[in-house]
Amino acid sequence: MSETVAALDEYLERTATERLEEYQAFLRIPSISALSAHTGDMHIAADWLADKLRDIGIEHVEVSPTAGHPIVYGDWLHAEGAPTVLVYGHYDVQPVDPLDLWVRPPFEPQVENGRMYARGSADDKGQVHMHLWSARAWFETAGRLPLNVRYVFEGEEESGSIHFEEWVAANRDRLTADVAVISDTGFFEGNIPAICIGLRGLMYGQIDVTGPTLDLHSGGFGGNVQNPANALATIIAGLKTPEGVIDVPGFYDEVRPITPQDHAELALLPFDAEGFRDRIGVPALFGEPGLLPVERQGARPTLDINGIWGGFEGEGAKTIIPAHAHAKLSCRLVADMDPQRTYERVRDRIKALAPAGVNVEFTLIHTGMWSLTPTDHPATRAAAAAIQDVFGREPLYERGGGSIPAAATFASLLGLPVVLLGFANPDCQAHAPNESMILNNYERGIRTIARYWEALAAGLG
Amino acid sequence: MSETVAALDEYLERTATERLEEYQAFLRIPSISALSAHTGDMHIAADWLADKLRDIGIEHVEVSPTAGHPIVYGDWLHAEGAPTVLVYGHYDVQPVDPLDLWVRPPFEPQVENGRMYARGSADDKGQVHMHLWSARAWFETAGRLPLNVRYVFEGEEESGSIHFEEWVAANRDRLTADVAVISDTGFFEGNIPAICIGLRGLMYGQIDVTGPTLDLHSGGFGGNVQNPANALATIIAGLKTPEGVIDVPGFYDEVRPITPQDHAELALLPFDAEGFRDRIGVPALFGEPGLLPVERQGARPTLDINGIWGGFEGEGAKTIIPAHAHAKLSCRLVADMDPQRTYERVRDRIKALAPAGVNVEFTLIHTGMWSLTPTDHPATRAAAAAIQDVFGREPLYERGGGSIPAAATFASLLGLPVVLLGFANPDCQAHAPNESMILNNYERGIRTIARYWEALAAGLG
Repeated sequence: MSETVAALDEYLERTATERLEEYQAFLRIPSISALSAHTGDMHIAADWLADKLRDIGIEHVEVSPTAGHPIVYGDWLHAEGAPTVLVYGHYDVQPVDPLDLWVRPPFEPQVENGRMYARGSADDKGQVHMHLWSARAWFETAGRLPLNVRYVFEGEEESGSIHFEEWVAANRDRLTADVAVISDTGFFEGNIPAICIGLRGLMYGQIDVTGPTLDLHSGGFGGNVQNPANALATIIAGLKTPEGVIDVPGFYDEVRPITPQDHAELALLPFDAEGFRDRIGVPALFGEPGLLPVERQGARPTLDINGIWGGFEGEGAKTIIPAHAHAKLSCRLVADMDPQRTYERVRDRIKALAPAGVNVEFTLIHTGMWSLTPTDHPATRAAAAAIQDVFGREPLYERGGGSIPAAATFASLLGLPVVLLGFANPDCQAHAPNESMILNNYERGIRTIARYWEALAAGLG
Repeated sequence: MSETVAALDEYLERTATERLEEYQAFLRIPSISALSAHTGDMHIAADWLADKLRDIGIEHVEVSPTAGHPIVYGDWLHAEGAPTVLVYGHYDVQPVDPLDLWVRPPFEPQVENGRMYARGSADDKGQVHMHLWSARAWFETAGRLPLNVRYVFEGEEESGSIHFEEWVAANRDRLTADVAVISDTGFFEGNIPAICIGLRGLMYGQIDVTGPTLDLHSGGFGGNVQNPANALATIIAGLKTPEGVIDVPGFYDEVRPITPQDHAELALLPFDAEGFRDRIGVPALFGEPGLLPVERQGARPTLDINGIWGGFEGEGAKTIIPAHAHAKLSCRLVADMDPQRTYERVRDRIKALAPAGVNVEFTLIHTGMWSLTPTDHPATRAAAAAIQDVFGREPLYERGGGSIPAAATFASLLGLPVVLLGFANPDCQAHAPNESMILNNYERGIRTIARYWEALAAGLG
């Protein structure tokens, strides 16, 4: 072990308690970007983050406004001759409903069973916080970073990053870098270190079915009107075959086929289908026939209802025909699909499936681009080396099922290679109640990032 | 006009203001039977009603407990040699959501445009109140009623009258009568006086689709799990054909066919399909092909979703696969269907439609029996005469689409002919926001009931 690494480790060991307390302070801010009631909290979180960056020694720190929630920017560019890394994370979190399923309040972080429990502990405030402490360890032990860093921490990732691309385009000049490192992914099943080489894109919209002006008495009117809730069900049912194949004309036209080599690589992943099934608590897995679960997760598109509502949801019985019914519908997209085109195809299919007697609209809420990055880039190889050093094993290379619009923006707009270096445990319950981060992943992740900067400086130098 | 009738009319004219104030006081009690939070209000409403009956001069008044909400009973049996009428109404009301669509708060009754606006103004507190004042007018002018009356006012009609039959069975001895009069129906389109000769029954249940233990991230899990909301849609869509025919094996087996004579009678009703469509605000009516709207409404069964919910319903986007999804489903039933058997058939069909990867249950919430009564009974003819006298025209005879379990109970358990004499305007918006009663219907209805008692005493005497 080099003296530098020994000093970094010693510093991180010594400051563990302070770090956890600061981590909890960050998690206490309910920075839910999707809910307008939390706009104030978004600013509090952004300011908190900016202050921490300044305290560490990062320069040009700015809470940069967008048409939505602000982006926190900061840089340190004094490693002459060394490469520049653009680090991305997000300080916003998912909504917390259904609140009654949280064992501990989502914004009162608690350490238990070696985990930090709170909304955002893993996705993604925990990982943003890891970057702060990797940098802090370098400054406190070596007085400098081994390379140049630009930090970009977004506040709308959980709302589709709708203003991010515009901001990146407007700030292109101060975002020059050699590589982008995004820490918003996680380890493989079994908590095995992994580097994510692909992400899915997203098309998210809302179906609105409207019938009568008002809810109708189901006795007096039943039999003579199209029921909007029945109509909505008919539409949704028509979007997929019983086998789970998406039944939208042209939907799969641009999907990049899974090559025999892709299949061979993905088949190497030690995916435990039975453990996966048991952990999520379903009677059986379900998906497109003839594919590996890891292929369905990373290399094939989806169509899912994220929410559905209309009419009476209360206790007991209310005999109405609801005036309207609604659903949130989203598709995960893979290479080489076009989100806008997918929206148009789904919209046209929904319109075609709409039964008589109701009005049907499908409105786009947001889209996100997929990404697929090479495994043999020096930046990826340096990340693998840092993981090997800290976790004692080579990482797996997987394709993530989720979407990080920033990955696509950095690749397409800035022309950067993107390394998805994330540390969340696979059972972190991001987007669900009782989100948690395994503290071993968090602590080792900080050490991995610290080593990665050195390896990256050497590898890209 | 007889002296009696003139005195009744004069009394009712003179007391109009007092009556409206009392009507409003009754409507102010939020007696929603379906919601347990209103249990106290149910008792307040029952006590209010009992006090009014005693004030009028009704005897043996009792707030009679059931396993649910109490039944208010009272009688007056001093018209020796005259027939006895069993009067039924209900003092409970429907829930009020969606509350934001009410122009005036539902429990702050207001008179506007010749209508009383409030939840329960028409269904059914307004009609219960009409009976109170018909009796009061008789006592105040003649010191007696022209026949014997037993009042039974229920508190669970909007929750399926689940304890009513049991109570009737247990109180059979004190419910002896010659005819049952139920005032819980309304006039025909165009506000034309009508007597309802048939009612539909009901089978009301809930579908519960459960998948993963928790909501899942739609990126990480999408493609490998059956989505409960998609699954629910598939099930619901499979319950009807695109033409609106119910696709449940055996569902129509016991449905009494519409005879050529039934068809001819129903075709006489001046049903304005275009006005009906325009009033409810739908682009087109929709129902079983080849039938009149009045046939679909009164002589054919239905299957409707009354509510549907699951996953994210909020502002913006939440990328989850919901852990579970639910729907309230009900069928209106006609002669000669069996509610329990209908439940079993629908349940079996739902189970058969359930896709792999989720658990599906269909639970019965309540049932109600249909009824179909003769048009040529003397009690029906006397009601027609009273209507003719007050409203200046013969009533129409129609089949209602709704369900009043009490009608079936009185017919099957007590062997009584049932007259459905209701006065609600067809645009009263029972079960919907902004329920209202046209005050002309209310006032003339009181006079009709007062005359009906005299005609009934003569007709059945």
